[in-house]
Amino acid sequence: MPESSIDRARQTYPFVKGHGTENDFVLLPDHDGTIHGDLSAERVRALCDRRAGIGGDGVMRVVRSAAVGRPLSVATWFMDYRNSDGSVSEMCGNGVRVFAHHLVTEGLVDAAVPVVVDTRDGVKTITVDTVADGGATYTVDMGPAKVLGQTTVGANGVTWPAQHVDMGNPHAVAFVSSLQVVGTLVDPPARDRGVYPDGVNVEFVVRRGERHVAMRVHERGSGETRSCGTGACAVMVAAALADGARPEGDDVTYRVDVPGGTLHVTWTADERVLLTGPAVLVARGTTDL
Amino acid sequence: MPESSIDRARQTYPFVKGHGTENDFVLLPDHDGTIHGDLSAERVRALCDRRAGIGGDGVMRVVRSAAVGRPLSVATWFMDYRNSDGSVSEMCGNGVRVFAHHLVTEGLVDAAVPVVVDTRDGVKTITVDTVADGGATYTVDMGPAKVLGQTTVGANGVTWPAQHVDMGNPHAVAFVSSLQVVGTLVDPPARDRGVYPDGVNVEFVVRRGERHVAMRVHERGSGETRSCGTGACAVMVAAALADGARPEGDDVTYRVDVPGGTLHVTWTADERVLLTGPAVLVARGTTDL
Repeated sequence: MPESSIDRARQTYPFVKGHGTENDFVLLPDHDGTIHGDLSAERVRALCDRRAGIGGDGVMRVVRSAAVGRPLSVATWFMDYRNSDGSVSEMCGNGVRVFAHHLVTEGLVDAAVPVVVDTRDGVKTITVDTVADGGATYTVDMGPAKVLGQTTVGANGVTWPAQHVDMGNPHAVAFVSSLQVVGTLVDPPARDRGVYPDGVNVEFVVRRGERHVAMRVHERGSGETRSCGTGACAVMVAAALADGARPEGDDVTYRVDVPGGTLHVTWTADERVLLTGPAVLVARGTTDL
Repeated sequence: MPESSIDRARQTYPFVKGHGTENDFVLLPDHDGTIHGDLSAERVRALCDRRAGIGGDGVMRVVRSAAVGRPLSVATWFMDYRNSDGSVSEMCGNGVRVFAHHLVTEGLVDAAVPVVVDTRDGVKTITVDTVADGGATYTVDMGPAKVLGQTTVGANGVTWPAQHVDMGNPHAVAFVSSLQVVGTLVDPPARDRGVYPDGVNVEFVVRRGERHVAMRVHERGSGETRSCGTGACAVMVAAALADGARPEGDDVTYRVDVPGGTLHVTWTADERVLLTGPAVLVARGTTDL
């Protein structure tokens, strides 16, 4: 049989597939950094290819901090995040919940205490809210939001006022009369290039009820996506500001519906933003991509 | 740890992911029909979901013919094909190569002789052409083509003459000046509803050289796809007819480029159509979708 020669000729390695509000990822367990020390952009693109590969918005290598030159990290595990185009990324709010869920379900961390994960954006703390059939809900401390000025965004010939919020990456949040009025979001929305020289993530938002909004998002470099963790945080902050609900003494929580599911965002009295949402692991196995 | 309770609560079963010219499939090994005897449309949709699932154009359950009420079949294995929307389908020219490659690589059939696979469209014979690193090339006997009349198709306000070819399913093949002139193919192309009351697969074709064409395809029910096996066969037959190259004595072979790769189609002197192309298995593992 030719099979044995195929297996010998190619490297086979483990993977896990998961998603958070349909922002989906290929996880590559590589605890000691010996499998993917040379993780190439080409391999990331092959893994993320939705037809010829496994498919995903990004790849997260699961590696010990000490194995990637971070021996003094307070977090045992490092989230080595790559975008689907192969480029390196600092953090992903939906991804880090899936990453934490993988650590918990594999017994690599103690689920009874907050999970700490090292990232290129620093150490993130994730608390386990509930673990249920097939998935779990986690809360990630996304750090502070920077509330900046007013700007405008445009799509399909219409211009809307927008709130500039920085969550480590830039956002423009526009309240619209309906999510349909925005039309298809194939091209990046028009922006003020003086405010956003390197592009911007644009969120279009409608109100659904008290402290409840729904959004669509166009992510720079990715197009319209099913969910964006930092986008949901920016939307909540802009909505709370517009509602006069900026936290003073008590935390404020909003429900944020995204096309791929539901997130909850809390703005704390000490100005941190907490992102709460599901993490689901759907498949695990081996690949030779 | 909550993991053990998760595993007990959900059924975990094996899967394999593969593709042929980027027409991709989730294979479900279920040799005795004991795992997925009740394979539901809902589960097929969950598996094929490209964000929340594994992702695929279809699901192929790998089951013994005897286990699905076909005890007299000359083929040990039955390809239980489902479209990504959960509906039952008879056959898939790209899928059956991937199915055969799975049988060969798992040692479930003898690779030295033609592989026979039972389908809802009857028993198919697949020959192994080459087995190479990471994939293989197979030839499937797709049976006879029915050459029917002339018709027309339209897209984005332009109308083209087209050849009606039936490969078990209906096709309209239109030669165009370039594959770009067709524009985006979001909506089904216009057709003669008297000829194709139930819809039609429409192929747009350009010549690339002697016995070498390239095509785009809009599949009824699926939209534009990366590849369509019966579509490539219909295109070859229409091209050979247009070229005055209908086989007489000798077989005639054309190269057919599709967006997801390259196929070769042979029209034999005894009027059968043989489809040759790659089959690649990219991942295997378990899921609880």
